[in-house]
Amino acid sequence: MLTPEHIRTVVQAALVEDAPWGDVTSQNLIPAEATATALLVAREAGVFSGGEVFSAAMTLTDPAITVAIFVADGESFETGTVLAEVSGPARGVLQGERVGLNFVQRMSGIATLTAMYVARVADTRARIVDTRKTTPGLRQFERHAVRSGGGQNHRFSLSDAVMAKDNHLAVLTAGGRDVTEALLEVREMLSHTTHLEVEVDRIEQIEPVLAAGVDTIMLDNFTLDQLREGVALVAGRAIIEASGNVNLDTVAAIAQTGVDVISVGALTHSVRSLDLGLDIDLRA
Amino acid sequence: MLTPEHIRTVVQAALVEDAPWGDVTSQNLIPAEATATALLVAREAGVFSGGEVFSAAMTLTDPAITVAIFVADGESFETGTVLAEVSGPARGVLQGERVGLNFVQRMSGIATLTAMYVARVADTRARIVDTRKTTPGLRQFERHAVRSGGGQNHRFSLSDAVMAKDNHLAVLTAGGRDVTEALLEVREMLSHTTHLEVEVDRIEQIEPVLAAGVDTIMLDNFTLDQLREGVALVAGRAIIEASGNVNLDTVAAIAQTGVDVISVGALTHSVRSLDLGLDIDLRA
Amino acid sequence: MLTPEHIRTVVQAALVEDAPWGDVTSQNLIPAEATATALLVAREAGVFSGGEVFSAAMTLTDPAITVAIFVADGESFETGTVLAEVSGPARGVLQGERVGLNFVQRMSGIATLTAMYVARVADTRARIVDTRKTTPGLRQFERHAVRSGGGQNHRFSLSDAVMAKDNHLAVLTAGGRDVTEALLEVREMLSHTTHLEVEVDRIEQIEPVLAAGVDTIMLDNFTLDQLREGVALVAGRAIIEASGNVNLDTVAAIAQTGVDVISVGALTHSVRSLDLGLDIDLRA
Amino acid sequence: MLTPEHIRTVVQAALVEDAPWGDVTSQNLIPAEATATALLVAREAGVFSGGEVFSAAMTLTDPAITVAIFVADGESFETGTVLAEVSGPARGVLQGERVGLNFVQRMSGIATLTAMYVARVADTRARIVDTRKTTPGLRQFERHAVRSGGGQNHRFSLSDAVMAKDNHLAVLTAGGRDVTEALLEVREMLSHTTHLEVEVDRIEQIEPVLAAGVDTIMLDNFTLDQLREGVALVAGRAIIEASGNVNLDTVAAIAQTGVDVISVGALTHSVRSLDLGLDIDLRA
Amino acid sequence: MLTPEHIRTVVQAALVEDAPWGDVTSQNLIPAEATATALLVAREAGVFSGGEVFSAAMTLTDPAITVAIFVADGESFETGTVLAEVSGPARGVLQGERVGLNFVQRMSGIATLTAMYVARVADTRARIVDTRKTTPGLRQFERHAVRSGGGQNHRFSLSDAVMAKDNHLAVLTAGGRDVTEALLEVREMLSHTTHLEVEVDRIEQIEPVLAAGVDTIMLDNFTLDQLREGVALVAGRAIIEASGNVNLDTVAAIAQTGVDVISVGALTHSVRSLDLGLDIDLRA
Amino acid sequence: MLTPEHIRTVVQAALVEDAPWGDVTSQNLIPAEATATALLVAREAGVFSGGEVFSAAMTLTDPAITVAIFVADGESFETGTVLAEVSGPARGVLQGERVGLNFVQRMSGIATLTAMYVARVADTRARIVDTRKTTPGLRQFERHAVRSGGGQNHRFSLSDAVMAKDNHLAVLTAGGRDVTEALLEVREMLSHTTHLEVEVDRIEQIEPVLAAGVDTIMLDNFTLDQLREGVALVAGRAIIEASGNVNLDTVAAIAQTGVDVISVGALTHSVRSLDLGLDIDLRA
Repeated sequence: MLTPEHIRTVVQAALVEDAPWGDVTSQNLIPAEATATALLVAREAGVFSGGEVFSAAMTLTDPAITVAIFVADGESFETGTVLAEVSGPARGVLQGERVGLNFVQRMSGIATLTAMYVARVADTRARIVDTRKTTPGLRQFERHAVRSGGGQNHRFSLSDAVMAKDNHLAVLTAGGRDVTEALLEVREMLSHTTHLEVEVDRIEQIEPVLAAGVDTIMLDNFTLDQLREGVALVAGRAIIEASGNVNLDTVAAIAQTGVDVISVGALTHSVRSLDLGLDIDLRA
Repeated sequence: MLTPEHIRTVVQAALVEDAPWGDVTSQNLIPAEATATALLVAREAGVFSGGEVFSAAMTLTDPAITVAIFVADGESFETGTVLAEVSGPARGVLQGERVGLNFVQRMSGIATLTAMYVARVADTRARIVDTRKTTPGLRQFERHAVRSGGGQNHRFSLSDAVMAKDNHLAVLTAGGRDVTEALLEVREMLSHTTHLEVEVDRIEQIEPVLAAGVDTIMLDNFTLDQLREGVALVAGRAIIEASGNVNLDTVAAIAQTGVDVISVGALTHSVRSLDLGLDIDLRA
Repeated sequence: MLTPEHIRTVVQAALVEDAPWGDVTSQNLIPAEATATALLVAREAGVFSGGEVFSAAMTLTDPAITVAIFVADGESFETGTVLAEVSGPARGVLQGERVGLNFVQRMSGIATLTAMYVARVADTRARIVDTRKTTPGLRQFERHAVRSGGGQNHRFSLSDAVMAKDNHLAVLTAGGRDVTEALLEVREMLSHTTHLEVEVDRIEQIEPVLAAGVDTIMLDNFTLDQLREGVALVAGRAIIEASGNVNLDTVAAIAQTGVDVISVGALTHSVRSLDLGLDIDLRA
Repeated sequence: MLTPEHIRTVVQAALVEDAPWGDVTSQNLIPAEATATALLVAREAGVFSGGEVFSAAMTLTDPAITVAIFVADGESFETGTVLAEVSGPARGVLQGERVGLNFVQRMSGIATLTAMYVARVADTRARIVDTRKTTPGLRQFERHAVRSGGGQNHRFSLSDAVMAKDNHLAVLTAGGRDVTEALLEVREMLSHTTHLEVEVDRIEQIEPVLAAGVDTIMLDNFTLDQLREGVALVAGRAIIEASGNVNLDTVAAIAQTGVDVISVGALTHSVRSLDLGLDIDLRA
Repeated sequence: MLTPEHIRTVVQAALVEDAPWGDVTSQNLIPAEATATALLVAREAGVFSGGEVFSAAMTLTDPAITVAIFVADGESFETGTVLAEVSGPARGVLQGERVGLNFVQRMSGIATLTAMYVARVADTRARIVDTRKTTPGLRQFERHAVRSGGGQNHRFSLSDAVMAKDNHLAVLTAGGRDVTEALLEVREMLSHTTHLEVEVDRIEQIEPVLAAGVDTIMLDNFTLDQLREGVALVAGRAIIEASGNVNLDTVAAIAQTGVDVISVGALTHSVRSLDLGLDIDLRA
Repeated sequence: MLTPEHIRTVVQAALVEDAPWGDVTSQNLIPAEATATALLVAREAGVFSGGEVFSAAMTLTDPAITVAIFVADGESFETGTVLAEVSGPARGVLQGERVGLNFVQRMSGIATLTAMYVARVADTRARIVDTRKTTPGLRQFERHAVRSGGGQNHRFSLSDAVMAKDNHLAVLTAGGRDVTEALLEVREMLSHTTHLEVEVDRIEQIEPVLAAGVDTIMLDNFTLDQLREGVALVAGRAIIEASGNVNLDTVAAIAQTGVDVISVGALTHSVRSLDLGLDIDLRA
């Protein structure tokens, strides 16, 4: 969850990054008493995310600024939609503009892209989830944006769920050790609330992994046929996550194999900021 | 400049974000004494940026890890190139992998894109520069990546140079005040080391703005013809920056009008991470 | 997991709390060149925890101090055992003593108490786990100590697992809504890696809660007979946690009912520091 | 003193520790608009401490929560007493509950224990004081709780008073140097506002230590007879602190020897949290 | 610029430095309900600076305190002038007094000294500017005070403008390299908004440095005759800064040579606090 | 005491203040491989203070720099003395120079001034001590410098000793209450290690204040005759501090009245930086 405390901390740091000693332009060119009203306008269609963050960028710049958000996070909008209205001291509005836009454009870009994936799998049981390929420092913001787009989140960090990948399994079974046995022993060491997910590359790995009672099995880089076979084999004994080669062209077919979860790194690692702008009306 | 101190601070925060209480997977599945060697491999061609940052991600995870970087920031490489080699305790290598990649893929993505813009204007006097449309918290990393790609940086923040845009000019000349006079008065208030840049939308604004002795004049959303006319009019009396509608298709023509600087928001606001991967060889 | 980074941060803060401007006594009474050797000695038997933390307290006070730990976290020891040896500049050893002891005595106190609970349930399938009743600021230290004592950890925080208690269920089923249906809907909203635990007070609640496919069911304040009935009813469909009225006298009988997990608030909310002392041999 | 600033900082950190990314349970199970009223109720008798801290835990979780404290820090109460009332958004009340209780139960536990010691010495001149055996990070909270129980505080840290113990004296008098002379020289080096306390183990040390004009003399591990002899010998020339083997059974007799100050490590190093609970009444 | 955020951070740190655990004197001697009114009075004439900072010292100590500032930063005042009035809880007023005075006396001392320099050059084109010889941690406060006194600021830090001094030029021209060429190459590497200033020690260096198109040329330790010659030589092609041997006796003559900027280290490196006092009227 | 940890923290902050994004000049004009040797030279005579701080400024800028300090804190030196030698990467030496000098010049300025006061009272029992009129954020540095000059320190902060001034006494004795009685009651509330100092303005106040057993009595703005009378009256029953109208001309006479302590605000509130310089020898 994106907590108010976390929003404040990260947005404040971004404001200091963008204006460590204030805005010399506004300070020298705009009278202190000038006010402004500004509209946040969609220059293209999309799904909104980051209303509270945009608002914080403005009010942390100057507490005298008020922001009204007209579109909830997760709502779709058309080109030209007025998403929010800002009003208050002109210096503050001009100073906060860029940081506010940097956040809300990125978050809405993620939400919009996620919604496209989610739409592709709408008639299946599959959920679209994010990965750890997030922007350093902004993971919670990007996870929130994924949820705004109708997606769901994978584990938050390396600390809160186990995901055993090929390298881990290789070490675990070194010396010919049985994988089921090894995983059962791992399970014993974990807190009862810790989720255990194991990645497999081949059909033959599924049965021994399931035998250890894992919570989720990830089928990595499986063909559609292999996915279908995997789904049949698992038969509800664990959550099935598909991963690898997922894009807007392939996601529907992957979902139709019956997997539960599809993880998509592109949701956050290659974000195009949505085109939103601030139309400012200044009164000196 | 990207200082070692700043790299440490931001990378450390990213590592804590990704593993606040350590990596439960490695901790439970990988023996403490296992070691690993890993190669950072280019899965597509590009321009490298972020070697020192990638290295910090690894050594801050575990000081026992050593990293050798084979390609300097700013160098081009082909698909398959081994960019760096990491070796040390396997738990640390596995834990640091994702954060290291998140930084270096993004930075190399920016450098690669910048290099494409720079190549387009190679036979002109124009420089490609970035904008303030950077990722919150990562401005210095992204500016560094732009330089890796052969671009240059615009002002760092609102605090270190004056950039007067349409809104500022409107306020400044409210009540019919002469723009030259108003700008001269602004100049008086500034430190002698503060750069003064003014944005104009129309040819007619150029002369009165220049008359105030500004350092840079930005021609915003000018057509190619207007740009040529502007360049002729300025005649070396100020640096000329072109802005607006700049993309890989248009940038060459814009550069050929003779402008000095072309600012490109897309360099940082819509970054595609370059496809780099870590091939890990574990020895338990 | 107790990371080196976290140990450093918390121990450093404790050292500053205890000597914000240094140790005026040592500074004025002990020559800078005096050295000391000190033994950490058990004045009563117990289970050790906090070796790395004790060591950090000394080396963060003065990097010239060296610490050798002779007993691993989780090992038992008798009265009189030498647990560690410290040597280095006398001023530093004297200054770091109290903070080092404050940590290691508390952590070993928790480990020792946990081990007593664990011993009581040794011949059953039950695990002893901690709760959120930890000392503010020291949760990871206390969780580590619980593991040193052979216990396991419950969820780390409110953010990483769902635990629905009576108040939550009351709200969820307000207006006569079916609890199974309501919980199934909650499950839909959660990440696939998020553990779902539900607390019940009565046998009749078990079936509808299980029907929603929860991961763990907590039987709160059940009598031994009720626990046995609950275990039979659940029949392996979920992990069973027993809670309430757990102490050293009751824990064995509770474990023998066949529950999987027994949570014990007393492990951390009422800690008696173990009696460990530092015998210092000073050479001026 | 426990300043509002310090309370805010420590409680905020504890809240983040307990819910770094919010409370997933409340978030998913409790409607945002639900409200709650909750009573802080004593499940056993004791002395209250931490009202302001408990209040901060609630209002820092959600500023819309209001807290009324009915019992002042330092007041006694019986089982069943309603100590405070909390009301506001249900999500916040549920989220803040555990952290608020963790603080107030511990602080009231310390106050209650301290009050028992103070009662034992009520008819003497002796004051009960704490030591540096406090919980790392919580020293000011625990010192406040000691005062709530009618005790007083010893020096806050190593930086604000000199306390010379056996090791220090050994170094000081190495090579047969006269202790009085050595201490007089120490006194010369200290600020005139720095308190000088010296610990002695034997009657014979008292006279030479007093001759140096120390402020306080600590009689460590003296028998009752030795204490009486020491009190007579000092004869008002310094404050007398008794230390060692102090517990609820021995403290009265120690006090009756006429010492001024009795320091008790147990007040803070082995705290049993007082049994206080929050009875929550939710309205969805 | 001195931002509200920066004032808060630095003043809060100063308050904690001066009263980490509150004011034991006020706490023990002044009733909580006592109030006070206090006047900030000039005990000597001068130029005011730091009104907002003084105010922050009071309100950050206790938000119940109100402060009315009667003299704007930059205004002159006579001995006896009441500069501000403070009222609120007596404990807070007494606690905040010293920190508030420490800031405002220092800042007004700088403003007053600056104003004396500015007055000396009133009939010339020269500006008085500060240097990097500021108090560690207080640079923005001291720069603000310089502006209050009618001076202007030099570059803020090493990061925001290039200033090439003798050592730099020596390296740059090692091996007989042409200085103009070398500087032109430096220019190429800089952002177009980065100011380039070069220091010269001799008349002969001026022409080749100017040929590289520098923004400012600093004439270091030039005699008055040399300065006049330098001004004539530069002839408006760059801003001219005079530096070295500047004091209240010499500054007028230096200004009359026609230089644009005179930098004065003494403005901040040897500050005499102005004599301001707080006359407190307590009502218990 | 000035701890290594505190030096690191404050000096690092000062370095970031002076070069948040590095030194653009050195970065662009000095080759990375160039080295430099630099001598810290006294341009006037004085007493040294801040060697460790100067050293930290250099090594925190670049750990590859080494610093040899030739003069201990507290030692006197003549004009031309080489105080320290710095060598290492030229970029680092040039970047760290200003911050290192800013600290060491200020600290040596304070030490030198303090030594002049101390010399004036050399043949008396009086100690010269500082006050709370220190530079915000640098109190420990300035207190250390006072000690380097042979002075001693007053209480560190409002939290560690009681000093009752006129306002406090006025409140304390409101309604005609007896001052002795009131102070005795205050004494009861204080920790036994808390120093109690009371300021008096008139001879008649001395006896009743002494009757309460205060540790120090401050005679504020007493004439020399009054001081002599006060000293006779106190007769060793408390430490006597003289305050008010203390300067280099008056301090000897004040000391000769027999007071124990003379507090001098000017030691820190109006510091002239000592003229020290860095002679740099660069090798590209």
